[in-house]
Amino acid sequence: MKIYGEEISGNCLKVKYVADYLGLSYEWIDVDIVAGGSRTPEMLSKNPAGQVPFVEFDDGRILSQSNTIIQFLAEESDLIPEDPFLRAKMMEWMFWEQYSHETAIAVARFRVIYQGQAVEDLDPQLVAKGNAALDLMEKHLINQEWFVGERLSLADVALVAYTQFAEQPGFSLEARPNVRAWVPRVKAALNCA
Amino acid sequence: MKIYGEEISGNCLKVKYVADYLGLSYEWIDVDIVAGGSRTPEMLSKNPAGQVPFVEFDDGRILSQSNTIIQFLAEESDLIPEDPFLRAKMMEWMFWEQYSHETAIAVARFRVIYQGQAVEDLDPQLVAKGNAALDLMEKHLINQEWFVGERLSLADVALVAYTQFAEQPGFSLEARPNVRAWVPRVKAALNCA
Repeated sequence: MKIYGEEISGNCLKVKYVADYLGLSYEWIDVDIVAGGSRTPEMLSKNPAGQVPFVEFDDGRILSQSNTIIQFLAEESDLIPEDPFLRAKMMEWMFWEQYSHETAIAVARFRVIYQGQAVEDLDPQLVAKGNAALDLMEKHLINQEWFVGERLSLADVALVAYTQFAEQPGFSLEARPNVRAWVPRVKAALNCA
Repeated sequence: MKIYGEEISGNCLKVKYVADYLGLSYEWIDVDIVAGGSRTPEMLSKNPAGQVPFVEFDDGRILSQSNTIIQFLAEESDLIPEDPFLRAKMMEWMFWEQYSHETAIAVARFRVIYQGQAVEDLDPQLVAKGNAALDLMEKHLINQEWFVGERLSLADVALVAYTQFAEQPGFSLEARPNVRAWVPRVKAALNCA
């Protein structure tokens, strides 16, 4: 299996974390996202959506979308709850992550770290959206160590990917002690601390 | 089961389409999204993310995120391919829909239809994103009747939800004959034409 991605991207790191956790062998193909590396003719012929990560299996089949890839790789592993409703709650968090979390925190981080925007110049709506996402996580973690059920699942993997970098574009984890304690818990469980 | 939603929302319609297709009995609870109906204290106590649709099962359990709900409801039905890789491709499209399609086409539609913005005043980046999403769909459908495999799946349901309304905020289906032919095909297969 080849994983196309870049380690600056939390979405790509999800795939690396899960592949490493499961002990899968793979070749990592670096793609320079900022320079448009995911949208070259060769890359578009493999993944027309022009995004990374995507994986190419040895038989040539391609799969993209970070949360889909990790779900496919982790099938039948302890990263996915056996109970159908818990599995659905895991997916709920994963869709929420892509819609309400990544679109604020990853986007703000990209603007600050890779486009050089000053934190204080970030779009206030983007900042408010990121704060709302982190507040929701903080509230959920008041009585729980993990997002779903009693152990690590793909919901934690999906959410830790960018939460671990939330302070780079100015979001506060200090103000959210449950989230702050959960990040190293997830990374330790994944052996990627 | 209670479905909380509003029929102006493609995300809510997905749940209605699937529940009707499967012949599930449910009570539809109307939520006035534009008036903030999904963010009242009562609604937030049920779904802290403050979004619709969500479903409340008879035992009180709550599930949100449109694409998660339809996946949970349709488990073991013919709307989900049995082959694990086809199932993953279906999920790939569903994540792509929420990240790259809904965020352009549903947002543009919301601004035009519910906030009264003129089509010609829409953010050009939003319009470009919507056009790119529709172009990708058009290309994919050149050789396929359905998004995944040889029959209707949840990928079609997720994508038709807002594609059917794409012309309201000014996107052209006439310029995309494959998409244009696919919309009524999906709706006929769902018996919601």
